Amino acid sequence: MASGTGLFVYTILLLLIGQIPTAFPQSIIQILPKVNLVSDKNALYCDSWRFSVETNDAGYWSTIPTRCRSFVKDYMIGDRYKSDSEVVAGNSLTFAKSLEIAGDGKDAWVFDIDETLLTNLPYYEAHGFGSETFDEKSFDEWVEMAQAPAIPESLRLYKELQQLGIKIFLLTGRSEYQRNVTVQNLYFAGYKNWEKLLLRGPSDQGKPAIVYKSEKRSDLINEGYTIHGSSGDQWSDLLGFAIAQRSFKLPNPMYYIA
Amino acid sequence: MASGTGLFVYTILLLLIGQIPTAFPQSIIQILPKVNLVSDKNALYCDSWRFSVETNDAGYWSTIPTRCRSFVKDYMIGDRYKSDSEVVAGNSLTFAKSLEIAGDGKDAWVFDIDETLLTNLPYYEAHGFGSETFDEKSFDEWVEMAQAPAIPESLRLYKELQQLGIKIFLLTGRSEYQRNVTVQNLYFAGYKNWEKLLLRGPSDQGKPAIVYKSEKRSDLINEGYTIHGSSGDQWSDLLGFAIAQRSFKLPNPMYYIA
Repeated sequence: MASGTGLFVYTILLLLIGQIPTAFPQSIIQILPKVNLVSDKNALYCDSWRFSVETNDAGYWSTIPTRCRSFVKDYMIGDRYKSDSEVVAGNSLTFAKSLEIAGDGKDAWVFDIDETLLTNLPYYEAHGFGSETFDEKSFDEWVEMAQAPAIPESLRLYKELQQLGIKIFLLTGRSEYQRNVTVQNLYFAGYKNWEKLLLRGPSDQGKPAIVYKSEKRSDLINEGYTIHGSSGDQWSDLLGFAIAQRSFKLPNPMYYIA
Repeated sequence: MASGTGLFVYTILLLLIGQIPTAFPQSIIQILPKVNLVSDKNALYCDSWRFSVETNDAGYWSTIPTRCRSFVKDYMIGDRYKSDSEVVAGNSLTFAKSLEIAGDGKDAWVFDIDETLLTNLPYYEAHGFGSETFDEKSFDEWVEMAQAPAIPESLRLYKELQQLGIKIFLLTGRSEYQRNVTVQNLYFAGYKNWEKLLLRGPSDQGKPAIVYKSEKRSDLINEGYTIHGSSGDQWSDLLGFAIAQRSFKLPNPMYYIA
């Protein structure tokens, strides 16, 4: 009886602190989820919050909910972000392979850059994963470093689309004055041979992203291109007018651009 | 030492079988996830698959992946579907409350019916949660019973929108011959006082849902209505033309309608 009670107390303790002794094999430690009523409730809420931002149900939001900070961190640096990126890249490639490529050089795919081809995770790791108010100055300093890594699944897709004979257009909310560092960063990350890199010029400043990006896609269509696919982490990359035949929403629970 | 080894073995056992003795309080049992490497890998994949269908990245699909059957079941009958529905209804209401209602009787909100106002979960529970090929005959028999329950969060939203002075339009892929059972089911579930119930007439048969629904929304706009919001579990409820000021995607990992 005493031994049974001991086991019971021990197990409860184990559950409550969500930890096990370090003597346990690493693989076991990794698969043991932290069990904690508060974090369970948060996880349920934050997962629904993520649903609402990824479907655009939430509309505009400025920072992630405070209670979701560790949820977003775990999502971004754990397996889930990678897994979601992989499935989206797979969807995109399946669609691309189903296309009849005209081969006249007018088959186009539009990629956004930040959180689509490149990840700014190193910056956001140092800035609370979207829980801090966006600070343009420090973000621009990060951009100037030109060291954002590729999202590996996007890089693979990018290359595979090129092999299919599709021309790549890069359409970013970054400004013309950032062209050089952007090109430098893209090369650093392994991206090459795009058709055009479109940045905000003087006349694009102040426009909502959804308008600016629709106008640029419209220009491409007027130049005779068929935009088969469009990839972006923001709905403002994908909706509006002159939309692609298929749009692919990449995950991004860290920030929202209208 | 022997006692330490005993605890170690006991805990490993606990982890491997993913179960704890029935003497444990029910609340503890509920929060202890089953630990299983295969199901962990499936959960990661299926969660990404769900991301891809809820964002429309996956495009058309006919049945859920076989490996995701228990994932979808757990999602639908556990806390997550309810939690997601709650957050979407909250987003919708927040937006509705921010509106300036003209009060001229022309403020409109469009609701889809199946998996938006009503849930067909009892049918899908008996048919593999989307893992079986859709069978129109048995589904129509279910519809004829007029016993689909309300999604509680949607019913609350529906009533709150009415209190704000917004007129409700129901726009469904169901056909005119199902009007009576549909009305009967809506009353049964607690829905009342909608402005119009729009079903597929003879000239709408065979049209893709996205076209049929866009045309009907277009008619409403031509009648002078402002469609502030649109709620649906399918992207074909929300996209196309004559789209609402804001669209709200409800969760549905069980089936896809183009």
